Amino acid sequence: MSAPVLTFLTDFGDTAPATCRGVIWSILPEARINDLTHGSRAFAVRDGAFLLWSSLPYQPVGVHLAVVDPGVGTERRGIALAVRRGDRLVGPDNGLLLPAAERLGGITAAHSIENRALWRDTVSHTFHGRDIFAPVAAHLASGVAIGEVGPAVDPADLVQLHFPEAVSRDHGLDTSVLFVDSFGNCRVAGGPGDLEALRGALSPGDRFSVSFDGRSVAVTWQLTFGNVDPGVPILYDDADYDGLALGVNQGSAADALGLAHDTAVRIEPA
Amino acid sequence: MSAPVLTFLTDFGDTAPATCRGVIWSILPEARINDLTHGSRAFAVRDGAFLLWSSLPYQPVGVHLAVVDPGVGTERRGIALAVRRGDRLVGPDNGLLLPAAERLGGITAAHSIENRALWRDTVSHTFHGRDIFAPVAAHLASGVAIGEVGPAVDPADLVQLHFPEAVSRDHGLDTSVLFVDSFGNCRVAGGPGDLEALRGALSPGDRFSVSFDGRSVAVTWQLTFGNVDPGVPILYDDADYDGLALGVNQGSAADALGLAHDTAVRIEPA
Amino acid sequence: MSAPVLTFLTDFGDTAPATCRGVIWSILPEARINDLTHGSRAFAVRDGAFLLWSSLPYQPVGVHLAVVDPGVGTERRGIALAVRRGDRLVGPDNGLLLPAAERLGGITAAHSIENRALWRDTVSHTFHGRDIFAPVAAHLASGVAIGEVGPAVDPADLVQLHFPEAVSRDHGLDTSVLFVDSFGNCRVAGGPGDLEALRGALSPGDRFSVSFDGRSVAVTWQLTFGNVDPGVPILYDDADYDGLALGVNQGSAADALGLAHDTAVRIEPA
Repeated sequence: MSAPVLTFLTDFGDTAPATCRGVIWSILPEARINDLTHGSRAFAVRDGAFLLWSSLPYQPVGVHLAVVDPGVGTERRGIALAVRRGDRLVGPDNGLLLPAAERLGGITAAHSIENRALWRDTVSHTFHGRDIFAPVAAHLASGVAIGEVGPAVDPADLVQLHFPEAVSRDHGLDTSVLFVDSFGNCRVAGGPGDLEALRGALSPGDRFSVSFDGRSVAVTWQLTFGNVDPGVPILYDDADYDGLALGVNQGSAADALGLAHDTAVRIEPA
Repeated sequence: MSAPVLTFLTDFGDTAPATCRGVIWSILPEARINDLTHGSRAFAVRDGAFLLWSSLPYQPVGVHLAVVDPGVGTERRGIALAVRRGDRLVGPDNGLLLPAAERLGGITAAHSIENRALWRDTVSHTFHGRDIFAPVAAHLASGVAIGEVGPAVDPADLVQLHFPEAVSRDHGLDTSVLFVDSFGNCRVAGGPGDLEALRGALSPGDRFSVSFDGRSVAVTWQLTFGNVDPGVPILYDDADYDGLALGVNQGSAADALGLAHDTAVRIEPA
Repeated sequence: MSAPVLTFLTDFGDTAPATCRGVIWSILPEARINDLTHGSRAFAVRDGAFLLWSSLPYQPVGVHLAVVDPGVGTERRGIALAVRRGDRLVGPDNGLLLPAAERLGGITAAHSIENRALWRDTVSHTFHGRDIFAPVAAHLASGVAIGEVGPAVDPADLVQLHFPEAVSRDHGLDTSVLFVDSFGNCRVAGGPGDLEALRGALSPGDRFSVSFDGRSVAVTWQLTFGNVDPGVPILYDDADYDGLALGVNQGSAADALGLAHDTAVRIEPA
């Protein structure tokens, strides 16, 4: 039997993630910890939710600890979720966990984290990752039943997060930048099907006009970067993030085009 | 019995930390390695010492390897320390290990690293992390007695590091920025008790004036960030770093206020 | 028997490396994964090749997965290599793996990655790290024979990478910046022997003139940084990267001198 897997995502820097891993290993020495990232954009709950959603389907069934938590120490609740695939998710009740929970089959149980017996003895106001979430995740990974963490709550009462959506209008797609990755690729809301609804099946080389901030850029639809010259922008289906994206071969679309989180973008067949 | 824990902190980049982990795993394949951080500010021994001090209390008892070592290859000594909690600490004799050793109960034995049988066969002048410290740490984690690394030295002879301290004067606290974390929170020397000595018990909302670089900023004492609006600065007791800090809700106090390492700061009740 | 070691190097950011680790652990739960770095310069195959070459000799014998892959999704081939030391290397056929393979004793077998039974069921156009390379590496680490990944190819047919070399001319060494490390140290092509051929045995304090971009800087040969004052540039034999480098004590040679990747540099005895 292999050791339990615990994945871990935060916007923490310095030694904070390692301090949490120390707490986890103090409770469950055999845990195999997969740090999803600790470079999630600071305070950006939506980015964390999006990254969890993109990575968890590829992780073994396990316990998934995520903390992007601008409300730490306030009245916001901590939650543990069970999902249909068999995983447990642990983190703040601010929407962070919900898209991933949905992608893992949907929530089968939600509990409010209230049982202090599973926390560290001393709980700070500003580091619940270390004092509450990490120990609760470690206890769940070591076999503690989810009902032990606190009372059941109605999943419908959990805090939801707003995600921008793509809207078809006048032979174009109104969308916006959902996430900028480390290469500068810009994932926008919507999928290839939204473009196909506008112009039929997509083929490499199909031309589109991308408009934002009062200007337009001509791009082609491509399957991958290397089919255009370095520096040339493309529109493509991003495999990491499962949907439409703007990229630049061997460059940063964000820098080259001047795109950032939430830039409004319109895509039209050209 | 679970595998031995070895924590690891450096200011190394690129593949250097992984190269050291390769050396450790070549000696002790079952080591569980917790990378505390490899983003400790380059050449800043005090930052490394502060981060070790803040994280080690939350780590399982084990061997703690730390290398921030501007003196690599010079006459500076390498040391291994035993502390009352049962841990071993390994690194350069430049003050890096001492605050953490004190926090883990104090030094019970100190040894100069001189036994070449525990080093790599070839030792470079610029990468003692790989050639000396990592193998010595791995041997200690595999059960080698600390006395094997080299002769005992008097803990009083170890190189000390200067840490700034807070001083009460004229109804205010003279302090300075000790550490800037990845969010931009600025930990300053001193604790809540120093402010209470000035004005009695602290309550959320208490007003203070913070002066530095010839200007003053009004802040309130808060338990956590989310109790003020985004962008508003607060004075609080930092849980990661166990003491007074200046923060900004969902922002960087360093950027917003113009604070940096060692900025002199005066805090007065307002 | 200890668990198989799998090292992992990419230029990926965000959760992409963790997604690949999830795929690996789904196939081989007991794999011990050593992330060499995921900060290899984006799209820079030569940097990745250089870092692999510098770190792999210090890693336990195992499977080494490396993906710096600007040609992902194009016709470029994926390859698995066996080397004389006993390791397996997995990645794109773009030169990335070859210098390290040579340093581990040379290639004993090369295979084109074509057997889809070892891939993920669905293969994207832009994330072969997750869909092809990670699962193939995990299968190799779990004992699958290298011949299973696909047909043997002639090592002479693999894509080679150009590395700049140092050339002696007119009592000086014409070289260029091969790699800039995280401290700003600049590794240049060539080794200490190239300088000794110009002026005989090297001793600390020997003077050299370093010319680039139309200007010259006076440096001394040193064994390590701490033998000069902070801020002073030195010429030294870099232990991480096994060859000549320009550094600055407690500073960045790249920033201080204005050096970057591929800057042409001439070194002359002074």
